[in-house]
Amino acid sequence: MSRPSQLPTLALLMTGSELMSGDITDTNSAFISEQLLAYGIETKEKVTVGDELPLLAEQITRLTRTYDMLLINGGLGPTQDDLTAQVLASCAGLELVEHPAAKAHVLAWCEQRGFAANQANLKQALLPQGCEIFADAPGSAPAFYLTINGCLVIATPGVPSELKQILRRQILPYMQTHFSCQQASPWQRFLLFGIGESRLQQLLDEKLPAVKTVLDIGFRAAFPYVELKFKPQQGQPPAAISEARTALLQEVGDYWLGEQCTQMADSLVQALLSAGATVSCAESCTGGLIASEITRIAGASAVFPGSIVSYSNSMKEQLLGVPAELLAQHGAVSEATVTAMLKGLLQRTGTNYGIAVSGIAGPGGGSEEKPVGTVWIAWGNQTQQHSICLMIRFERRLFQELVATISMDLVRRQLRGATKPPAYLQRWLAQSPARL
Amino acid sequence: MSRPSQLPTLALLMTGSELMSGDITDTNSAFISEQLLAYGIETKEKVTVGDELPLLAEQITRLTRTYDMLLINGGLGPTQDDLTAQVLASCAGLELVEHPAAKAHVLAWCEQRGFAANQANLKQALLPQGCEIFADAPGSAPAFYLTINGCLVIATPGVPSELKQILRRQILPYMQTHFSCQQASPWQRFLLFGIGESRLQQLLDEKLPAVKTVLDIGFRAAFPYVELKFKPQQGQPPAAISEARTALLQEVGDYWLGEQCTQMADSLVQALLSAGATVSCAESCTGGLIASEITRIAGASAVFPGSIVSYSNSMKEQLLGVPAELLAQHGAVSEATVTAMLKGLLQRTGTNYGIAVSGIAGPGGGSEEKPVGTVWIAWGNQTQQHSICLMIRFERRLFQELVATISMDLVRRQLRGATKPPAYLQRWLAQSPARL
Repeated sequence: MSRPSQLPTLALLMTGSELMSGDITDTNSAFISEQLLAYGIETKEKVTVGDELPLLAEQITRLTRTYDMLLINGGLGPTQDDLTAQVLASCAGLELVEHPAAKAHVLAWCEQRGFAANQANLKQALLPQGCEIFADAPGSAPAFYLTINGCLVIATPGVPSELKQILRRQILPYMQTHFSCQQASPWQRFLLFGIGESRLQQLLDEKLPAVKTVLDIGFRAAFPYVELKFKPQQGQPPAAISEARTALLQEVGDYWLGEQCTQMADSLVQALLSAGATVSCAESCTGGLIASEITRIAGASAVFPGSIVSYSNSMKEQLLGVPAELLAQHGAVSEATVTAMLKGLLQRTGTNYGIAVSGIAGPGGGSEEKPVGTVWIAWGNQTQQHSICLMIRFERRLFQELVATISMDLVRRQLRGATKPPAYLQRWLAQSPARL
Repeated sequence: MSRPSQLPTLALLMTGSELMSGDITDTNSAFISEQLLAYGIETKEKVTVGDELPLLAEQITRLTRTYDMLLINGGLGPTQDDLTAQVLASCAGLELVEHPAAKAHVLAWCEQRGFAANQANLKQALLPQGCEIFADAPGSAPAFYLTINGCLVIATPGVPSELKQILRRQILPYMQTHFSCQQASPWQRFLLFGIGESRLQQLLDEKLPAVKTVLDIGFRAAFPYVELKFKPQQGQPPAAISEARTALLQEVGDYWLGEQCTQMADSLVQALLSAGATVSCAESCTGGLIASEITRIAGASAVFPGSIVSYSNSMKEQLLGVPAELLAQHGAVSEATVTAMLKGLLQRTGTNYGIAVSGIAGPGGGSEEKPVGTVWIAWGNQTQQHSICLMIRFERRLFQELVATISMDLVRRQLRGATKPPAYLQRWLAQSPARL
């Protein structure tokens, strides 16, 4: 079975009626494929069927005849509709018998939880004769493996947390030995903000044609970000790889959130920590989203003392000291108002940096002069403040997310020393140019 | 092809290398299965393969020989790796030709966006000879259908928004006519908060054994909620269905968010609108999340003027008037502090109701006396205020979400006239009992 010179071909068989009704979105198969691809093992085919014996048997027979390895996910539970062990025994022409190690696991699992194993629990120890189990299953169901039609078949639990643990701790190490496969060069990933997929493609084609001969490059949109991933092509010398990576980073670095950053707030908090600075917000249309994004980050308290959500005009007056006459004259969505919000905010919180936003998230509230999507953002520190008007015609929640992300990016860029708004805002600029 | 007496069997073929690498979680197939199941059409098998001609051809041949209908998703784009039209032509033994209506659609689509169609765009008009297209495709790719091996094959775009629109507007109506199928009794869904799946199962088993003979019932966890769904069993008389629904609602109604509510903030905003009341928040550990959840809801401005995020002690003093001595004596996470936060909040915002929260979200910041997970919540109106201490040992973000949801629920229940905290809080009660 061992194929040292060639990587095995892999198929996935996902089982469960909840996957066929659309009640559940399958996240397990993407996880499995991603983890195995890191060892160079590609998923060639993925089949999903409900809890029906003939359908399961037909697919297991077909897939074991076609591929080197079949990973089955789901159907190991204690209830009647969990059929994986039974159908595997039938396809392999084996008896379904009580597996001593599996029984010991089930008994111990129940005992730890303070109850005696019942008939349903013990059903999980009935496995195809001669199969092997993986030790230390996190749930009550043991994962197991056997060979059918020369194909290595591994049965895994459907509960996502159980699957993840057993795949990482037991199955990947086992596969490495069994197939003599090594961890392939993993993809490196950059999370970018402010550039779209098509523009990114164009930039790579025009400016970095040579990089594509050294690195495999891929990208995908993950609103409001784009993820750029790359890995060295086989056989490339380290110097060429390092050079290509540097060239790539030089082109896209301006959009990159930075190492370990999975969202803009990560990047902002890191930049504030490095600078020893603090930030606060005066939020109208984003309604607390910027504060919420920042305080998702563990340790945010070092850079963020608090915020004011001034959703109504009266709160802009009372909590931020925006003059009633100014609001009456210019309206809540105006340069005068966000500038006054920012000023009042910095006075009240005493933070080094501040963000003030006021806009029309929709679907209601727009006018001919200020349609839905209009937003004013003011940002800056105690000595240097800026403001900008954008027109973002997105559905309410996406509007709020994009405005929050742009606002955080503007402060992050100011911390880096930027003296003008980033070029990517051109496409959303509205009314008047930024005042800098 | 038309089978008036019997519903067609359906298979899905999902294509795209990004689905095989694990880069993308496939949400399209769950959407398709759910929509078609509403017409009684069950997905029997779902296969996913990458953009490889032989694999695609093999599956199309196999699936069209096995099922009445095959829905293909993906591979209609303008680039070289989009192969669906080409492989369908090959499987059907047809030429790939320029489809006049498809070409007109592509040209119009490009023109609307201000550019001339290029070679890549026009590739999307090359379809198997004799196939039909669905009109008004939302994207550049037209969806189309043809018959192969007696099986109706429908090719749809992989972009989720395009798929959703074309499935609802064109494909479902077409299928209804083609297969003479009618919309099956749709599931009704209740979103519940404060009860877990196992407790819900127990409650139904013990209190409503008869309901299960009239209604099909299912449920699933969707943190922090549980979705309960039900539909009448075939042949049940309307009176029995209505009686069963009433009995079900009587048992779970206390946990139900209400009609059209997809999150707790929906339910709170509806309750406030009905009462003509307003709310504001003083948030420490939730960091703006409650305000953000409320302002996700369109029209929230009628009930929510604003909030204060007082993350640091100094902001609790400056923005809410919590006395420094009180903070020094009792600490930020204490009954005295949240009570003072609520009092200061109601004075400053003048809203009818208020929420104040202060806790330790972790992972750092805990102590022996106040471990990570400790949270004080104060809530109430101008005349009646309550407070409670909970211990919620969840990871930071889940802690924040659960605290926000409980806080909104407490005000919602007070609006309904509840005079004590809901029973479900028992499991999280910490330290001292609620003061009511």
